[in-house]
Amino acid sequence: MTADPAPAPHHHDTVRALQWQEDRLRVLDQRRLPAVFAYDDCADSSSVARAIATMRVRGAPAIGIAAAYGVVLAARARYRQDPGGWRQAIEEDLRELAASRPTAVNLFWALDRMKAAIATAEGDPYPGLLALAHAIHRDDVEANRRMGSLGAELLRGSRGVLTHCNTGSLATGGYGTALGVIRTAWTQGLERVYAGETRPWLQGSRLTVWELEQDGIPATLIADSAAAWLMRSGQVQWVIVGADRIAANGDTANKIGTYSLAVNARQHGVRFMVAAPTSTIDWNTAKGADIEIEERAAAELLNDYFLGDGHLIGAWNPVFDVTPAELIDAIVTERGVVLNPAVTGLAALGGH
Amino acid sequence: MTADPAPAPHHHDTVRALQWQEDRLRVLDQRRLPAVFAYDDCADSSSVARAIATMRVRGAPAIGIAAAYGVVLAARARYRQDPGGWRQAIEEDLRELAASRPTAVNLFWALDRMKAAIATAEGDPYPGLLALAHAIHRDDVEANRRMGSLGAELLRGSRGVLTHCNTGSLATGGYGTALGVIRTAWTQGLERVYAGETRPWLQGSRLTVWELEQDGIPATLIADSAAAWLMRSGQVQWVIVGADRIAANGDTANKIGTYSLAVNARQHGVRFMVAAPTSTIDWNTAKGADIEIEERAAAELLNDYFLGDGHLIGAWNPVFDVTPAELIDAIVTERGVVLNPAVTGLAALGGH
Repeated sequence: MTADPAPAPHHHDTVRALQWQEDRLRVLDQRRLPAVFAYDDCADSSSVARAIATMRVRGAPAIGIAAAYGVVLAARARYRQDPGGWRQAIEEDLRELAASRPTAVNLFWALDRMKAAIATAEGDPYPGLLALAHAIHRDDVEANRRMGSLGAELLRGSRGVLTHCNTGSLATGGYGTALGVIRTAWTQGLERVYAGETRPWLQGSRLTVWELEQDGIPATLIADSAAAWLMRSGQVQWVIVGADRIAANGDTANKIGTYSLAVNARQHGVRFMVAAPTSTIDWNTAKGADIEIEERAAAELLNDYFLGDGHLIGAWNPVFDVTPAELIDAIVTERGVVLNPAVTGLAALGGH
Repeated sequence: MTADPAPAPHHHDTVRALQWQEDRLRVLDQRRLPAVFAYDDCADSSSVARAIATMRVRGAPAIGIAAAYGVVLAARARYRQDPGGWRQAIEEDLRELAASRPTAVNLFWALDRMKAAIATAEGDPYPGLLALAHAIHRDDVEANRRMGSLGAELLRGSRGVLTHCNTGSLATGGYGTALGVIRTAWTQGLERVYAGETRPWLQGSRLTVWELEQDGIPATLIADSAAAWLMRSGQVQWVIVGADRIAANGDTANKIGTYSLAVNARQHGVRFMVAAPTSTIDWNTAKGADIEIEERAAAELLNDYFLGDGHLIGAWNPVFDVTPAELIDAIVTERGVVLNPAVTGLAALGGH
């Protein structure tokens, strides 16, 4: 039961942000990277929810996996307290986990899978729920490896790519979505990897290039606003990003700045790939305009000088934007690739 | 001779980064804003060159004006040392000033004007050169006020604008170019001013919003990468930027990120204005592709973790990019406005 469900066996795949160990979830604190490499122990459900809300855990797939382990911890505690009433008591923990980040559809997807298992559990729910959380974790890594292969196929002959935010082992169960495609493509001859620094939280300059360096892949950081100029220079043939939520029509919510990259990619004849597991597709959301966009505090952008009262200066800090399907050349999932999703639709990827 | 050549008389125009006082140039140290508001004294030419090279002075027009005062200081010192040989001796100072920033064409324009006056000076050159530096300074502010009026005409009926970098009183002799247009438009009913934070040096979040607040103009900061999403939201009708160098065909070099804004503006039906004095036009450079783009140190972008030896991570840090004339709807100068410069050319603005 303590065997690692998602080992990191390859030279180009050494990082794991979530590790189940004995009876707790170890969470790599991504706020402190790259200066400090340190795991926190989460021994109960509330500490998992806090780890998500405070962005020690981030990335839509990783949030889903962490929440699944959070449910395991909640079930164990509630069942010990009250073997007869644990199914009622755990509702509070499930609500707390669901409230930890509003946009990540994988969070709700993972919680729904755990809830279904709770409904049918008999006796001590711990072993069965832990096995399910492990399966969710392992399936995510396998899905990422599959996306890596499918995405790298599309990159054949490309010399350079640009990515945004962090979509790697840190953002997933391991290997990564967009960064998984880059990992696989790197072993197949990709020459240049560019990463946008990804203001305001700097996932690119703190996490993505750190993770690539851990795995022996050289990378070049750029200011987000330099991406158009990079495209104009001809150094990149593809932009590759992940997704926080994909609407049923292929419109994709992802880290703020993604939409600008897509507009510029189209303008420069650079192709645009979204790599995300099908669990990221929200079949109940028809189109991008229906996706609620999380806004974070102005303080993430404002200089400290402006944080007191009485200032005339504010900030607009949307965390995500929505890239319309028309600007996406390929959506790569573990179930296959959809080219030109605005034309072909996503039906081939399954559905409800 | 010590009268302020560029007073700041208006409620919406209170900031001056360059102040001639008695016998020296006072330079507002823009690296320390907004936390610290402090002027440095430059009593000789070398300290002016250092103030430019270290970016205490920044902004193409301000660099030109500072360099003009630097020549005044150099001439005074060289003439005192050797009234017969000062014209030879000052060449070294002129070279040092010219080398302080490579892209700012106004620097060379100002130095050329001062050199012409050096060539014809009789007796003590100090009074005449100081009068010329004052004239350059005063003319710049007047040019900015004129641009403000001309640009604001084009904005009539617009509710919101987005600007990039700092083009205000801090970047000029006073009032500003693009920010001068915004100042004037604000007094005429403009409702919303958005400023991009302008990575990596954060001129937007440190300088532009500070300057606007000093002058009672509320502003909203955004991450540079949020600009496309802002345009999509319909909140801005114009993007207004300055210029570091304008080629003879209207292609415009400006702070990195400007090109991305222009591409996105065109995509969203948002109009794009460059506001710059005609001294920014480099008639000897036919087109944007001929403009050399300054690149600054990777350390401005990289996390400290990656600064040692042996890392696989680098950064590409171009300071400027070039926006093709086709993406520019209006170039506003003190001599008039050119609409659709790609079609009409710049000939109406003068030339050599």
